[in-house]
Amino acid sequence: MPSPEFFQVVPVSDALRHLDSHWQPAPLSETIATADAFDRVLAADVVSPEQVPAFRKSTVDGYALRAADTFGASQSLPAFLTVRGELTMGQAPDLDVGAGEALLIHTGGMLPASANAVVMIEHTQASGESEIEVLRAAAPGENVIQAGEDVSAGQTMLAGRQRLRPQDIGALLSVGIPSVAVLRPARIGILSCGDELLPPEAESTPPGKVRDINAYTLSALTQKLGATPLRLGIASDDFADYQRRARDGFAACDILLLSAGSSVSARDYTRDVIAGLGQPGVLQHGLATKPGKPTILALCDNKPVIGLPGNPVSALLVARQLLPALIARHDGQTLPAPRLLSARLSQRVASVTGREDWVAVSLSEREGRLQAQPIFGKSNLIFTLVEADGLLRVPLNTGGYDAGSLIDVLMF
Amino acid sequence: MPSPEFFQVVPVSDALRHLDSHWQPAPLSETIATADAFDRVLAADVVSPEQVPAFRKSTVDGYALRAADTFGASQSLPAFLTVRGELTMGQAPDLDVGAGEALLIHTGGMLPASANAVVMIEHTQASGESEIEVLRAAAPGENVIQAGEDVSAGQTMLAGRQRLRPQDIGALLSVGIPSVAVLRPARIGILSCGDELLPPEAESTPPGKVRDINAYTLSALTQKLGATPLRLGIASDDFADYQRRARDGFAACDILLLSAGSSVSARDYTRDVIAGLGQPGVLQHGLATKPGKPTILALCDNKPVIGLPGNPVSALLVARQLLPALIARHDGQTLPAPRLLSARLSQRVASVTGREDWVAVSLSEREGRLQAQPIFGKSNLIFTLVEADGLLRVPLNTGGYDAGSLIDVLMF
Repeated sequence: MPSPEFFQVVPVSDALRHLDSHWQPAPLSETIATADAFDRVLAADVVSPEQVPAFRKSTVDGYALRAADTFGASQSLPAFLTVRGELTMGQAPDLDVGAGEALLIHTGGMLPASANAVVMIEHTQASGESEIEVLRAAAPGENVIQAGEDVSAGQTMLAGRQRLRPQDIGALLSVGIPSVAVLRPARIGILSCGDELLPPEAESTPPGKVRDINAYTLSALTQKLGATPLRLGIASDDFADYQRRARDGFAACDILLLSAGSSVSARDYTRDVIAGLGQPGVLQHGLATKPGKPTILALCDNKPVIGLPGNPVSALLVARQLLPALIARHDGQTLPAPRLLSARLSQRVASVTGREDWVAVSLSEREGRLQAQPIFGKSNLIFTLVEADGLLRVPLNTGGYDAGSLIDVLMF
Repeated sequence: MPSPEFFQVVPVSDALRHLDSHWQPAPLSETIATADAFDRVLAADVVSPEQVPAFRKSTVDGYALRAADTFGASQSLPAFLTVRGELTMGQAPDLDVGAGEALLIHTGGMLPASANAVVMIEHTQASGESEIEVLRAAAPGENVIQAGEDVSAGQTMLAGRQRLRPQDIGALLSVGIPSVAVLRPARIGILSCGDELLPPEAESTPPGKVRDINAYTLSALTQKLGATPLRLGIASDDFADYQRRARDGFAACDILLLSAGSSVSARDYTRDVIAGLGQPGVLQHGLATKPGKPTILALCDNKPVIGLPGNPVSALLVARQLLPALIARHDGQTLPAPRLLSARLSQRVASVTGREDWVAVSLSEREGRLQAQPIFGKSNLIFTLVEADGLLRVPLNTGGYDAGSLIDVLMF
């Protein structure tokens, strides 16, 4: 006869700190084409091999000239300059400007050697076949960007361990870096355990059986977090089978998720299976969070192992709390701020002090502002989360929120 | 001699409304494995073929029994029941409960035919080899979820045109839907034009030339938005070449982005090239946004075509404004709320009424709150955005923000 489970629960943040004191992430890196590196994490700092811009260029459409020729020019007393021609984009200037001369130049065009400023087209006026009036004085350097003004050769242009955004890809390519060293994404092993579980392709579910969906919800969450899911199948409630599958999967992944079924044997076995994977083993059994209380956090041979509840909602909500933190640590990154929306709570949500509660809510527009409606599902089945737009977090030391409270909703 | 460009600029929202009045998106769909469908857009409503749960099950660990046998039970006056055994997970009950009897059951386990409630383990106490004391009365249906309580067969479980989240994948698989019809992601054709452009793999840049990065920043943005980039290479400033490449690319994509170089001919040609792609052609030339004023928005043969500025910062910032809206329209979706962080502005940002300004800002922690520092780059090169964490939007009819203003930063 099983005894009720009593855990010495700790807050999630304490459990993660405990992990931090033991775990020394050592991600592997690989070199890939920069063009394919969007959203990958840079392995190390990147230094520019070139200066940017490579040459002095115009930042506007206008006339390249010697600034001194325009000093004192105004609307009423324009400077008259001879237009010697037009500079062609994409090649070194084949013309130069002498005193009293100007050359038509386009945005991004290379300045001729003797020019030191550009006046915008808008500040000139044609006054003859090849003559312009300059209606405003140009200062030396005006509308010109000097070679190396943005980046000098040898300068660190991107810091290691950042996720590459569209502009970062552009910056790398603009200085001629066709390939970069990036981290290999963390491989998240996912093993479900329980005699009641069928693979989801099962056409029908005999009495007492359910399709295993945790492997798939956790895979999708893993993808969302930029890591690579490794689905390890379904272990039966047989200890030897569970242990063998866990060991094989553990060897191939960086972080292992075990989602144990609801049978007592599967739950008991999870601790034993983890104990066999390496030292120091289980760091924490029991988190001060609902759902998710019976979660196990372990470190085996320098790889985190999480024992998740078998219930699909609990498994997904606990993984949402732990996996982003673990993947960020693996990648040496700071966790990005979560996407929160402010909403008014439609009805009271009760909680217990000393426990963090996660409540699924749906959002709707009510009198010009968002209203959050808690979804209380008796079954705690995945459909509760399907109807939800996000989650309300009731912090550890809050007894709940009253109806009408302004709350932050963590969006899916 | 080129004349300065005068546009009848309109706000971005007006231009998009104009597009809406002509465009009738007709996305194609394809059927793929549900397990691979994370973040894809459902083509149509999905109806559940099964009821959920498939059978009456326990929501707790406890004893299945007849509720009437516990009526009046309390701590001081428990009900005594005979435990007939334990129900095995994953199969139909091979035992039933008679009057005065109970069966050990686990969370998710199927209820035996004659049981109508479950008491939690915690509310019982062993009182003999096969006898328990029930310390609290159980109401009929307590801790039991009825068959079909979550979803009934034939019920619409997911609405078409939503992006599939981890829980949605789980819900589909849990009712035995192994494959789903999803939209084929919008194919975004990207063609750069300009004699000054070299492919980014060029080892060095001769005077006057630059590497083309727009094709790659726009590809990465496209990936970020869940669409598929089609890089169409670089067209020269030769009209025939530009037109041929644009036509070929147009045929293969759903939305075409042209990023014209800075030469006057390339800019002039873009209008002409678009005119040759189909009706109604250019809808708007000039947006009330900075950067991005000379942007062209067109619809040709029911496909949007955008003429972007050639400058990499302008091209990326304009695409950030237009592409999410176009892809959402293509997919029949509502645009998700942008990720905003509140920050205090470090210095005044000036703007002009009647124009929306986008200013790159970097964020830092200052006295416990975020401070946004505008990045003013003379060059307007991509490195301005590399240093930035996000963008400050100065709305159309705002003259700017003073130092110390509390602003929303749109995060990259």
